[in-house]
Amino acid sequence: MTELLSTLDRSRTHVGPALRAAVERLDPTSRLVASYHLGWCDADGRATTEAAGGKAVRPALALLGGEAVGAAAEVALPGAVAVELIHNFSLLHDDLLDGDLERRHRPTAWAVWGSASAILAGDAMLALAHEVLLESAAPGAPRAAWELATVTRELTRGQVQDLAFETRADVTLDECLDMAAAKTGSLLAGSAAIGAVLAGAEPAKVEALRTFGAQFGLAFQLVDDVLGIWGDPAATGKPVYSDLRARKKTLPVTYALAQGKPDPVLLDWLTGADEPDPAALHRIADALRTRGARDWAFAEAKRRLADAEDALAAADLNHRARGELLALARFVLERSS
Amino acid sequence: MTELLSTLDRSRTHVGPALRAAVERLDPTSRLVASYHLGWCDADGRATTEAAGGKAVRPALALLGGEAVGAAAEVALPGAVAVELIHNFSLLHDDLLDGDLERRHRPTAWAVWGSASAILAGDAMLALAHEVLLESAAPGAPRAAWELATVTRELTRGQVQDLAFETRADVTLDECLDMAAAKTGSLLAGSAAIGAVLAGAEPAKVEALRTFGAQFGLAFQLVDDVLGIWGDPAATGKPVYSDLRARKKTLPVTYALAQGKPDPVLLDWLTGADEPDPAALHRIADALRTRGARDWAFAEAKRRLADAEDALAAADLNHRARGELLALARFVLERSS
Repeated sequence: MTELLSTLDRSRTHVGPALRAAVERLDPTSRLVASYHLGWCDADGRATTEAAGGKAVRPALALLGGEAVGAAAEVALPGAVAVELIHNFSLLHDDLLDGDLERRHRPTAWAVWGSASAILAGDAMLALAHEVLLESAAPGAPRAAWELATVTRELTRGQVQDLAFETRADVTLDECLDMAAAKTGSLLAGSAAIGAVLAGAEPAKVEALRTFGAQFGLAFQLVDDVLGIWGDPAATGKPVYSDLRARKKTLPVTYALAQGKPDPVLLDWLTGADEPDPAALHRIADALRTRGARDWAFAEAKRRLADAEDALAAADLNHRARGELLALARFVLERSS
Repeated sequence: MTELLSTLDRSRTHVGPALRAAVERLDPTSRLVASYHLGWCDADGRATTEAAGGKAVRPALALLGGEAVGAAAEVALPGAVAVELIHNFSLLHDDLLDGDLERRHRPTAWAVWGSASAILAGDAMLALAHEVLLESAAPGAPRAAWELATVTRELTRGQVQDLAFETRADVTLDECLDMAAAKTGSLLAGSAAIGAVLAGAEPAKVEALRTFGAQFGLAFQLVDDVLGIWGDPAATGKPVYSDLRARKKTLPVTYALAQGKPDPVLLDWLTGADEPDPAALHRIADALRTRGARDWAFAEAKRRLADAEDALAAADLNHRARGELLALARFVLERSS
């Protein structure tokens, strides 16, 4: 745990100033929206005293991926900034599309400034990510920018599917895994690979890092889905049972539905129109657990982590960086225990 | 006119297949939204028999810009596709942000499929533009992608300003010119320059083309603003007086407001809350014309065109391509006569 926190701290210390310098380039309105969303200030632009931002896992992956192939931190830095910009572009748009009113115990950006400001700030951050990457003199910068664009389209494809699932009752587990791979796996895969791509590393190393990130991403999503159903709101920053309220076809839900004859409690919930009351939400969560959804999700997350670790073990990477990547991956499961 | 139509036809013939191949790569939902928005099909995906799309001025500029520096059409082609994707990403988002229900006599994409599909299709097209550019083997591809990203942020900045103007009564002509330069001028400037950038042309030629595009863009916006007030709905594809209904602080409006003591008809309109009735809209249009707004806009457009032509004349460019660029620019004024 201590090693991991030091990795994340190091990443934040290194990436933070570069990310702030990038955001500083946005037009004043988008800059305020982005700075608020990133947890740097309140809605009036006053600097926040405690960090309200995310864990910056993606920038940490980008830096460690660069170190894993022996690159100096400066080489991977534009990649770290770019993936964090893409992640937050995506969150700004997704909060609006999902109608989410809260993120990390604060109103979402669109809830504060309206949909137009959130859409435009997101658009600007997406473009800015490409500017930052293409200003790098690293040999792999154009390739990294191309990959970032493909990842962004994968993110978008995942979100399109996720929204389509809301009005479908027949979502299969395979479809849900494909959606999670697109919506979550692709950017974590791209983050783990981008530092090595920037450094012009040999393909085998880049692919090992990418596979690590993709599997890590699915483990991440599985645990996130468990937290969205059974997690403590104080820890997740989201309302209790938020994913059940929204009738989200998450991985544990599609797993439970595929186990034999459908449970009437689950069918009522999926086909209902009104928001379930607290007692009903509790019954739905219990029905999912009884069907083994929680246990399956944890076991599947562990299996994905093992695959992620195997991918790294098979490649010729820097020893210390590999250790830190593994510690970061293990944290995905630990944060839920 | 004949020469111009041949330029636009040539551009469509050349760019059309490449643009379709690019759009084909989108996820099925975003592909349908994009194809409908581009006028290729109806809302059910059935191919349209007549072209309902735009004039594809930006791809034509990109191809001609390449030809102007002696590059083969293949070199500029990814640039032509990319600027058309960026233009349409921007239209998809702007139609939603502006609440516009119609474009080219058809319901806008968000009016057909909702805001989420329009936002995500736009996001995907923005990313796709970068993929297409960075897949080019042209020497200037990374530089062109970087420029496209800066242009996209300028577009966004212009749209942020445009929306902010809606709730402000004190917008100056300079602010409005800055907004138009960002929202319209930047992408036309980028379009005119991108073919030459891809070809790795010398800076003086690139800058001449960029200046040409920027001035052409402002002339374009001035004429578009005139059409938004006094244009024939059958020709513009927008409801009559659409910009006046929306209380848009367009260039002719900000010009009229700056001419001496404010006209009470204009002040009532600007500070009112209800939608003006047809008679009131007619009075507002007349008040703007009386203040010289229409004449000023045409004269200013002519002046910008002269500057655009001067920029081209001063640079060592291919004679035929320069002639076609000028013909395209003159069309901006001609389409309103």
